[in-house]
Amino acid sequence: MATHEPIPFATIGTGWITKSFIHAAQSTGFYKLIAVHSRSQDTSSTFAATFATPAHGIKAYTSLDALASDPAIKLVYIASPNSSHFPQAMALLQAGKHVIVEKPAVLNVNEMCELQNLAEKKNLVCLEAFRHLHGPAFAALRAGIDELGPIYGASLPYASRSSRYEALLRGETPNVFSAEHAGGALRDLGVYSVSLAIALWHAPERARYEPRMLATGVDGGGWLTLHYESFDVNCNVSKMWTADGQGEVYGEKGRVLIEGVADMERVV
Amino acid sequence: MATHEPIPFATIGTGWITKSFIHAAQSTGFYKLIAVHSRSQDTSSTFAATFATPAHGIKAYTSLDALASDPAIKLVYIASPNSSHFPQAMALLQAGKHVIVEKPAVLNVNEMCELQNLAEKKNLVCLEAFRHLHGPAFAALRAGIDELGPIYGASLPYASRSSRYEALLRGETPNVFSAEHAGGALRDLGVYSVSLAIALWHAPERARYEPRMLATGVDGGGWLTLHYESFDVNCNVSKMWTADGQGEVYGEKGRVLIEGVADMERVV
Repeated sequence: MATHEPIPFATIGTGWITKSFIHAAQSTGFYKLIAVHSRSQDTSSTFAATFATPAHGIKAYTSLDALASDPAIKLVYIASPNSSHFPQAMALLQAGKHVIVEKPAVLNVNEMCELQNLAEKKNLVCLEAFRHLHGPAFAALRAGIDELGPIYGASLPYASRSSRYEALLRGETPNVFSAEHAGGALRDLGVYSVSLAIALWHAPERARYEPRMLATGVDGGGWLTLHYESFDVNCNVSKMWTADGQGEVYGEKGRVLIEGVADMERVV
Repeated sequence: MATHEPIPFATIGTGWITKSFIHAAQSTGFYKLIAVHSRSQDTSSTFAATFATPAHGIKAYTSLDALASDPAIKLVYIASPNSSHFPQAMALLQAGKHVIVEKPAVLNVNEMCELQNLAEKKNLVCLEAFRHLHGPAFAALRAGIDELGPIYGASLPYASRSSRYEALLRGETPNVFSAEHAGGALRDLGVYSVSLAIALWHAPERARYEPRMLATGVDGGGWLTLHYESFDVNCNVSKMWTADGQGEVYGEKGRVLIEGVADMERVV
């Protein structure tokens, strides 16, 4: 019954989102964690121990090459800093692994094309870990929007002050605000607003972002406008400030409210 | 005791806002309505009768010249369509009346300069009826913002679907959506967001408005961004759609919420 054996997978990165992914993946019964990766041996070993059981050890890698060469691993979930996503995903696809890459999977469209071409050539799956478009709330949102008649506009805010912002104010450079690690608000929270708009209405004709730049060289926040032929989508995107505002889609016959543009917890 | 005699005033326009102004003005004891004006005799007479008492009649004018020539009238409140504000205010100042003009008092800065120059020359008062900056909520807002440290940005939405919008969809052209009467969203609701930003932070360095234009030739709504040196103010302005969003001012130390950018009912 090979098709029902859990898929052995590994993870890169040891943050809360990796833990959350592991718990979710294993709870389905379709996946089994067998290895983790972190640049530091201590972190890697500690993280591996979290998921090990008496009957089932977890390998702790610090080398990407070693992880890629492990024939037991079929799938790798990548939750490293944004700037590492592309080189790691390429290396793992080259080594014959399926990959799931945290958002933003890549930093530009060329990188995404390279990943997809390689995955196709090697008959592998390469997915961005952007699940919420596959949930029931998105289906409800799409159905609600279909009833609005002509769309007049939308506001899709996702602005939430980062827990690392105080460190930034103290003069530190957390990864999420680091240019070296491809941080910044648009690449992080902005992905939710942009992906949602594209999923609903395809790519905009043009876009305009007016960022407030931080001393670290990345955007702390700003207003993004996506221009479509007959309406605009405005997105308050920030990791410097928190906006309470819900998502709103306006149309001739009324509007649809989205409680939480990222999670879409409720669509009214 | 001439200084305690109520000031005799007249009104132009017969909408709900004129009624509301008359009730508010008379309730202070400082003002006494003695005449009204409407282009139609029926409307003017009916409106006058609403405020007449057995002991105190109200004159019903249909001619601006006749109103302006009435020596008993000291002050005129103007709530006609936007396009009439400037010529009516000029005529009344010329005739020696003080004037209070509904917002937007004028359509461009040159008109405002002309009104102010004439008022000054004739020692008369010429005010825009924009009271909310003089209330306690604005003082609370300003005090709250002073505690935010450096300002990062603000969202000042005022988007509310007009009660006349259904008529527009039926192919009619209500005054508020008429180019001839200088209608449109920015000149109407947008005044609240813009005036509030200017009152808090003076005039922006530049502004950008991306309107959705209606077939009648005016803007139905859009996103307005006011650019200041170190932050931007984003305003969702519309008479085509309704936004629930509260006003939010973001700063280094937190934020201030404004429940209702127009009325500023509560500042948190």
